[in-house]
Amino acid sequence: MSTQSENAPIYDVVGIGNALVDVIGEADDAFIAAQSLVKGSMTLIDSDRAHHLYRAIGTAVEMSGGSAANTVCGVASFGGKAGYIGKVSEDDLGQVFGHDLLAVGVHFSPGQPLEGIATGRCIIVVTPDAQRTMNTFLGVSSFMEPADVDVDVVAAGKVLYMEGYLFDRNDAKAAFRHAARVAHAAGREVSLSLSDSFCVDRHREDFRALVTDEVDILFGNEQELLSLYQLQSFQDAVDAVRRDSSLAVITRGPRGASIITRDEVLDVPAQDVPHVIDTTGAGDLFAAGFLFGYTNGYSLENSAVLGSIAAGEVISHVGPRPLVELRTLLPQF
Amino acid sequence: MSTQSENAPIYDVVGIGNALVDVIGEADDAFIAAQSLVKGSMTLIDSDRAHHLYRAIGTAVEMSGGSAANTVCGVASFGGKAGYIGKVSEDDLGQVFGHDLLAVGVHFSPGQPLEGIATGRCIIVVTPDAQRTMNTFLGVSSFMEPADVDVDVVAAGKVLYMEGYLFDRNDAKAAFRHAARVAHAAGREVSLSLSDSFCVDRHREDFRALVTDEVDILFGNEQELLSLYQLQSFQDAVDAVRRDSSLAVITRGPRGASIITRDEVLDVPAQDVPHVIDTTGAGDLFAAGFLFGYTNGYSLENSAVLGSIAAGEVISHVGPRPLVELRTLLPQF
Repeated sequence: MSTQSENAPIYDVVGIGNALVDVIGEADDAFIAAQSLVKGSMTLIDSDRAHHLYRAIGTAVEMSGGSAANTVCGVASFGGKAGYIGKVSEDDLGQVFGHDLLAVGVHFSPGQPLEGIATGRCIIVVTPDAQRTMNTFLGVSSFMEPADVDVDVVAAGKVLYMEGYLFDRNDAKAAFRHAARVAHAAGREVSLSLSDSFCVDRHREDFRALVTDEVDILFGNEQELLSLYQLQSFQDAVDAVRRDSSLAVITRGPRGASIITRDEVLDVPAQDVPHVIDTTGAGDLFAAGFLFGYTNGYSLENSAVLGSIAAGEVISHVGPRPLVELRTLLPQF
Repeated sequence: MSTQSENAPIYDVVGIGNALVDVIGEADDAFIAAQSLVKGSMTLIDSDRAHHLYRAIGTAVEMSGGSAANTVCGVASFGGKAGYIGKVSEDDLGQVFGHDLLAVGVHFSPGQPLEGIATGRCIIVVTPDAQRTMNTFLGVSSFMEPADVDVDVVAAGKVLYMEGYLFDRNDAKAAFRHAARVAHAAGREVSLSLSDSFCVDRHREDFRALVTDEVDILFGNEQELLSLYQLQSFQDAVDAVRRDSSLAVITRGPRGASIITRDEVLDVPAQDVPHVIDTTGAGDLFAAGFLFGYTNGYSLENSAVLGSIAAGEVISHVGPRPLVELRTLLPQF
C-alpha cells in the first residue's frame, strides 16, 4: 500500500455507489417470464415501470441495499472502519438507508440534497433457485455528480471502492473519475466492482481504459470478466486481466474465487452453505471480506477466505447485508 | 351467524386498526434494560422517542404490520376474502402498507387523507428469546375517526374484527363504536382483540362494557383475560368471560388455546415449532386462522386448529405476516 499521504487513513474502505433501498419479493419463473425479466441481471427502470413491477409482486420486505453500500457494511461488520458516499432524499426510504449505515458504524456522506426526487429503490425478485433479478429505479441516487464526492472522506480511506453501476450515468461517471483522482493524489488505492455483465457490456471501453489506467484492484465475477474482454475461456480472461491490472478478485459462484496477480492465481473454495436462500449481495460481501482482510494485514489468500465467509453468510438468508456480526466468524489463520 | 342482512356478505372478515409499518431490529436484554423497555409489551411513543429508539437499534428491516392488518392478511392467505380500514399517509411507508395489503388480495379503505402527517410505524425489538417488544409511533393512523369507517365495507363483512389498540385514542374509539353499530345493523358479528395486557389495563371499564354489550367474539391471550377481570386464576377468568360473552378465543402461548363458549371449553394444543424466531404476530395470526375457519363453516375446534397452524407459521420467522400461503397448510379434517 502506498504511503505518500501526509495523513494516516481513517477508514479501511470508502465506498461510492448508488444509494438504494431494496424492495424484496419472492416470485416464480413464470413471473420472470411474464414480466420479461432477465434472471440474474440488473435492469434500470423508470418510475412507471417501478410502479408496475411493484404492483405485480407480492408481499415485499424493505431493507437497505446498494452494491457498494452493502460492501462497506460488510467491512464494518468485520470490525473495519468504513465510509460511504451516495445520494438519498429526505423521505422514509432515505432515512432507512442512512439509519442502516450508521447502525453498523459506517460514516455516511449523503451528498447535496435535492428537493422532490425520491430515494432510489431496487425491486428484487427472488426465485426459488435463490437467484435474484434486480430492477433499479435510481431516483435521486442517479444525480450523483463530482460535487457530491466528499473529498476528505475519500482521501482518508485506504482503499476507494466504487461500483460499476455508476457508469450508467455520465455525471456519476465523472464523480467516479474525480474520486479516483482524489484517492490517488492522497496515496490511496482505487478499486472497482464490475457489478453486472450487462453493465460491462454497456460500458466496455470505459471499463477497459479504467482498469488499465486507474484501477488498482478489480472486483468482478467470471461472467463479468469474460464480458470485459469478450472472451469465452476463463484462462484467457485471466491472462488478459493480469496484463492490465496488478490485482483482480474474481468470484466464480459455487466454484469459489480466484485472486489474480501478475505472478500467480490463488484459488479459494466457496463456503459450504447448506441452504442457499437468496444470492443478493454475494459479490458485494465477497468484496467486503477481501477488502477488510487486505486493509488489515491479512495475506491475499486469507483475505479471499474472509470474502468467502462473508458471501456464505449473506446467501444463507433473504437480504443483501449480513445478519450476524461478521467479526464473530473470523477464523484463526 | 345472523342472516338479517339483505345483501350477501362480500368479505369473510373486515379489520379495523392502526395501520403501521413495522421496523424490526434485533437486540439483547441489555438493550431492553438500557432503553427502559418492558419486554413483550406495546408502548405508545412520540416522534422524538421514535427518533431516539430508531437511532439506538441496529440494522432494521421494514415490513407492513399493524395487528388487525396482520389478521386480515392471514385470512386472505388461507384463501378467505378480507377488507381493511386504517389510515396511512402518501409517503413511502404508506405505499408499502397499501401494497402489501393489495398484494394478498385484501380490499383496502385508507380513510380520508391528511397532509403532512407521517404513516405510523412500530419499532419492534426482537430479543434472542424470540420475544418482541413494540414501540408504536401512531402517526396518521391515530387520526382515525368515525368518518374514516367505510360503512359499505363493514356492512359487507361476515365478521368485523377490531383491535383493542384503537382504544388508546378517543376518536378511534368512536370509530370503533360506529363500525360496531354498522356491522350489527347489517346483521354481522363483531369481534375484538384485547391486543395487550397494558392496553386492557388502560381501558378496562370500556372493554368490560363492550364485551358485555357489543362484542360477539372476544380474542385475547391469557394475560389479557386475567387483566380484563383482574383475576389471578385462568379458571376464574374463564368463568367470568363466559358470563359476559358467548364466544371467547384465548391463546396461551406454548400451551395452545382455549375456545370458551357458554357450554364448553375446547382446548387446542399449540403447533410444534422447532425454532421459534420472532413471536410478533402470533396472536394476530391465531385470530386469522380462527376467523377463516369460523366464517367458512369449520367447527370451533377445527377453526382453532387453523389458528394454531397460522400462529405456528408466523413465529417461525422474522416478521408479523405469513411467508407461505397458509392455504397450502390447510389440513384434511
